Amino acid sequence: MRGISGSSPIGVFDSGIGGLTVVRALMTALPREDLLYVGDTARVPYGIKSPATITRYAREITRFLLGCNVKLLIVACNTMSAVALPGISDLTPLPVMDVIRAGAGCALASTRNKRIGVIGTPATIKSMAYPEAIKHLDQEARIFSQACPLFVSLVEEGWLNKKATRLIAEEYLAPLLEEDIDTLILGCTHYPLLKPLLQEIAGPGVTLIDSAESVAQNTRGQMEALKMLNPGPGEARRDFFVTDALEHFQRLGESFLGCKIETIRLISLQQEQA
Amino acid sequence: MRGISGSSPIGVFDSGIGGLTVVRALMTALPREDLLYVGDTARVPYGIKSPATITRYAREITRFLLGCNVKLLIVACNTMSAVALPGISDLTPLPVMDVIRAGAGCALASTRNKRIGVIGTPATIKSMAYPEAIKHLDQEARIFSQACPLFVSLVEEGWLNKKATRLIAEEYLAPLLEEDIDTLILGCTHYPLLKPLLQEIAGPGVTLIDSAESVAQNTRGQMEALKMLNPGPGEARRDFFVTDALEHFQRLGESFLGCKIETIRLISLQQEQA
Repeated sequence: MRGISGSSPIGVFDSGIGGLTVVRALMTALPREDLLYVGDTARVPYGIKSPATITRYAREITRFLLGCNVKLLIVACNTMSAVALPGISDLTPLPVMDVIRAGAGCALASTRNKRIGVIGTPATIKSMAYPEAIKHLDQEARIFSQACPLFVSLVEEGWLNKKATRLIAEEYLAPLLEEDIDTLILGCTHYPLLKPLLQEIAGPGVTLIDSAESVAQNTRGQMEALKMLNPGPGEARRDFFVTDALEHFQRLGESFLGCKIETIRLISLQQEQA
Repeated sequence: MRGISGSSPIGVFDSGIGGLTVVRALMTALPREDLLYVGDTARVPYGIKSPATITRYAREITRFLLGCNVKLLIVACNTMSAVALPGISDLTPLPVMDVIRAGAGCALASTRNKRIGVIGTPATIKSMAYPEAIKHLDQEARIFSQACPLFVSLVEEGWLNKKATRLIAEEYLAPLLEEDIDTLILGCTHYPLLKPLLQEIAGPGVTLIDSAESVAQNTRGQMEALKMLNPGPGEARRDFFVTDALEHFQRLGESFLGCKIETIRLISLQQEQA
């Protein structure tokens, strides 16, 4: 923990570009914090890989960020949050925040009828990580899950409000809405870009929980409690590291981040033995 | 080339599962040939990676297959065919077949008005590999290209004939059909599963060129010319190797292959230095 202080950066990581919605939320919730973001664009997507492989990759990224003297880690990737948290936490005594526990907590804070829907990639849904995280906090909650495998591609194509996207979203949400949910967790960091369409389909009676927002709020609370906020008055820095396809990340990333990405660097991760 | 003979297997490889449409076509065109298939499921998809990374990965798979004493290599992946052929051919004096040159040749054999459409992933289209391969064979041909980034996800979800899929396909094909093409190359190994829908949208005046079929036919011709056909009367073996997520490959793969996948093994590829 050499050299770690309040002015150290926060490390945020994802399998690719989606975690930038978490960075965006952090820039609002914690505007004075320096952020280091790693997107493992050489190996994205993680959702179709095995838990052992996902854990190995997550540990490689974690080691890289620990080497940058971060003061806190945020797993901005639902797939890694679902399967790799123990493997990440094993490497460090620092606080490790993740989108799943954050989203679960906020959903329970929001629901009135305790009927909660969760949408995500097939890997996240199959992992049962959201239902488990919610049940851990409240045994009485009922959780209804739906994998939405086409959403990531639609978002990456910028098809945010096309007729085809609406048809697909209606088909995905129908079984959840039939269950009378009043809260819907967007359990994938790509989904916040579909929020207007999803809110329209779900109707005003359903509260959407954006897990990117949730983890940013939780992180702020955690850091206040631990007195870890950056004491400095300076301009916050945000540095981005990717493992491949830098230009694609920059171009697409700006629509996730809502602003220009200034500094991106290409890195190689030290590989763990399989 | 120790131990290579007519009865050696053919090596077929892809970044993931799509190349199984090539295996399927080979099982019909060359039913007596043993096939070894490598799907690099740990690192799929390749289309979003840089050319240098794609070439490195392609060489790692090629080395693995050369170690299995294959007699011929088939690059059943449009992304690798587009950017990595020189890096693959450098490793071996064996014949290397690929979906792009095969599809280009068959398209020229089919067209009457020399106006040819090509659809594929963004990486394949951006590479300009099909237009270059076609122009190399016939300077007069006019080529019209369209990236169809949503098709792979739709195919992997089995959404082959949904209303949303039709809307998306109509939008993708419209600019090509306006150009009065009479031939359309399916420049991605996932697309043969969408053939009925695409033919319906394109109409009877447009011939669809399935690059999986094309490379199987070309391979047969090449092997006959080189007297490389398997002389044995025995049952052909087909062995499948993946780098991750074996069960997902098996489950989804059977819809690409049209039959059961019996033997799949998990392998690790020897890594080349970046």
